Amino acid sequence: MDNFNFYSPTEFVFGRDRENETGALVKKHGGSRVLIHYGGGSAVKSGLLDRVKKSLEAEGLFYTELGGVKPNPRDTLIYEGIEICRRDNIDFILSVGGGSCIDSSKGIAAGACYDGDFWDFYAKKATVQAALPIGTVLTIAAAGSEGSGGSVVTQEKTMLKRDTGSDLLRPRFSVLNPALTCTLPAYQTACGAADIMAHVFERYFTNTPEVEITDRLCEAVLLTMVKETPRVIADPDNYEARANIMWAGTVAHNDIVGVGRSQDWNSHGIEHELSGLYDCAHGAGLAVIMPAWMEFVMNHNVMRFAQMAVRVWGCQMNFENPELTAKEGIFRFRRFLHDIGLPINLAELGAKEEDIPKLVENQNVADRTWGFVRLSPEDIAEIYRIAARAEV
Amino acid sequence: MDNFNFYSPTEFVFGRDRENETGALVKKHGGSRVLIHYGGGSAVKSGLLDRVKKSLEAEGLFYTELGGVKPNPRDTLIYEGIEICRRDNIDFILSVGGGSCIDSSKGIAAGACYDGDFWDFYAKKATVQAALPIGTVLTIAAAGSEGSGGSVVTQEKTMLKRDTGSDLLRPRFSVLNPALTCTLPAYQTACGAADIMAHVFERYFTNTPEVEITDRLCEAVLLTMVKETPRVIADPDNYEARANIMWAGTVAHNDIVGVGRSQDWNSHGIEHELSGLYDCAHGAGLAVIMPAWMEFVMNHNVMRFAQMAVRVWGCQMNFENPELTAKEGIFRFRRFLHDIGLPINLAELGAKEEDIPKLVENQNVADRTWGFVRLSPEDIAEIYRIAARAEV
Repeated sequence: MDNFNFYSPTEFVFGRDRENETGALVKKHGGSRVLIHYGGGSAVKSGLLDRVKKSLEAEGLFYTELGGVKPNPRDTLIYEGIEICRRDNIDFILSVGGGSCIDSSKGIAAGACYDGDFWDFYAKKATVQAALPIGTVLTIAAAGSEGSGGSVVTQEKTMLKRDTGSDLLRPRFSVLNPALTCTLPAYQTACGAADIMAHVFERYFTNTPEVEITDRLCEAVLLTMVKETPRVIADPDNYEARANIMWAGTVAHNDIVGVGRSQDWNSHGIEHELSGLYDCAHGAGLAVIMPAWMEFVMNHNVMRFAQMAVRVWGCQMNFENPELTAKEGIFRFRRFLHDIGLPINLAELGAKEEDIPKLVENQNVADRTWGFVRLSPEDIAEIYRIAARAEV
Repeated sequence: MDNFNFYSPTEFVFGRDRENETGALVKKHGGSRVLIHYGGGSAVKSGLLDRVKKSLEAEGLFYTELGGVKPNPRDTLIYEGIEICRRDNIDFILSVGGGSCIDSSKGIAAGACYDGDFWDFYAKKATVQAALPIGTVLTIAAAGSEGSGGSVVTQEKTMLKRDTGSDLLRPRFSVLNPALTCTLPAYQTACGAADIMAHVFERYFTNTPEVEITDRLCEAVLLTMVKETPRVIADPDNYEARANIMWAGTVAHNDIVGVGRSQDWNSHGIEHELSGLYDCAHGAGLAVIMPAWMEFVMNHNVMRFAQMAVRVWGCQMNFENPELTAKEGIFRFRRFLHDIGLPINLAELGAKEEDIPKLVENQNVADRTWGFVRLSPEDIAEIYRIAARAEV
């Protein structure tokens, strides 16, 4: 096992009606002048934003607001948020929404405490040294940003999607009410599930041997998703299934399932170019890329894929030919994604095979030369080609 | 799923040689005047205490020390520690040892900030409102106190063992170096393993349905212990196995495997009277009590025990007679405990069947009327009797 630090100081406040405690939580965590950051209409229409504001007012807290976060959040809105923080002496950012909204909030939180251009953090020209405290009220189970220190933002003028991370960006608290996710369309629910599972797989495929505890914790989250996702697609109001998925989404990405060993993250990188270029949902892009990546790298460690097949997908181990078991596991993963309504090839995603050279060119290929398998530009092109041909 | 809060703000610093960072960690977490609290000779003899002191000196930190913590830590030493804290204006408690040492440190931390008798917290006459910050350097994988807010202390004059808990008692940091545990005798290693598994089982046997994520996380820790414990008993210097067990011990008790549902904890309560009366190792007492408790309560939810049997112990499900599967799971657990060298009945533990009435009398029976199954004094007596008769 590799040496590691694990630090997840976020206070998770989970369950029905917990958003009514938001004001008290902001106060407890030191906030007095709050920027409420949110996305489009659903938080407004559902009355959630009003409930949150009421709870801030009940604690006598000042607040201002900035809505309009889009999926694949843009740098432009973050610049605006930073200006508001400076103008109104904001000391706490409250993010009401999903991963895009929280990631945007993290950009604002870091940028407001930095004299230069906040994009420096995402362009890897600077590391976060200070940030405003953040709290979240989560509305989608997917990105895991509510418990992580990571943030992914798209630069509007180039459509490049880049990430940064710091323990300083971990939310002080996150309110998780599964009931808030019951109104999500099935497609968004499925995209969220793919994102959650990808966060685990990026940590599952490692070159560090003998970290059984982390393997088993990964499999715990995956098995939960395999059970609960079809239930919630069939029955969107199933609170218990929603609750399991929501907490699984947090556990999948605060790094408890990743400690003590190398991780991969190349599928995320390869996908980011898709959602950057086509503005598709990140989870949908992952559904197309992740199994394609698995097929491409499988021979690097067949037994690891066989383990996934047996332990996660319930395959029978073929002891005479483990490769067949490994392939069966990948096949079952792709069929699972298809069955919950996700695209499984480039065409279904709305992407074009002829754009592959451009997608490869946009990659920061230096980022793909570590992880489970080092990938060359030609390797990445082949993964996109596998993704173009995929079917169930 | 029940509403819950999950808050585990401890910074875990895991791996080889990490104890050399202790001074820097104390400083980072705000300490300047440190009480080093430790047990007997092993931390001194191994040179660990010297390394820790050196790291404090390197940061220019004041420290004083209080050794002599015994297994089943006593209130008497805690009174002494509280006096030292007041006399020397201590602002940080550094606990170098196992669960007993950390639990004792928590008593001191809470008592130093309280005008009354610290035992009030354990007698449930008061709740902790303030506590000195604590850091730990762990030397035994067992109690999980390095990541929990709980503490168990024995009152010397009555030999009663009582517990308290508060998020304020969660350590600010915990240094976990698995190599420090390689010198532990096999018996202590096995006792630690039983304690770790018991912490999971106390959370696994719940009356709240459909919390798949927590079930699976529980099973992840248990499966790890089933794999790694025999390896480490056979080969004490196996760093990888030690590392898996050490991290499993922390994950087992910071409550990530317990959220969202009712828990039990009656086996712990029933065991506490044994280690209180006979001063035996807590883990050894649990090895005797836990399977006996399982046999006694099994019919409350046969399918739950069958799930344990299949998912944790690899039993084949008997679909015609699930009770046989459930029984087989309990049998395999007891045989596992026996195989790693633990006692499995009262006699092997050094306890006497004729003391059962006294053991029952010492219970705070009101504490046993909740959990998976409510227990009457006669039920508790029967569990002790099952434990007296047990064999493999």
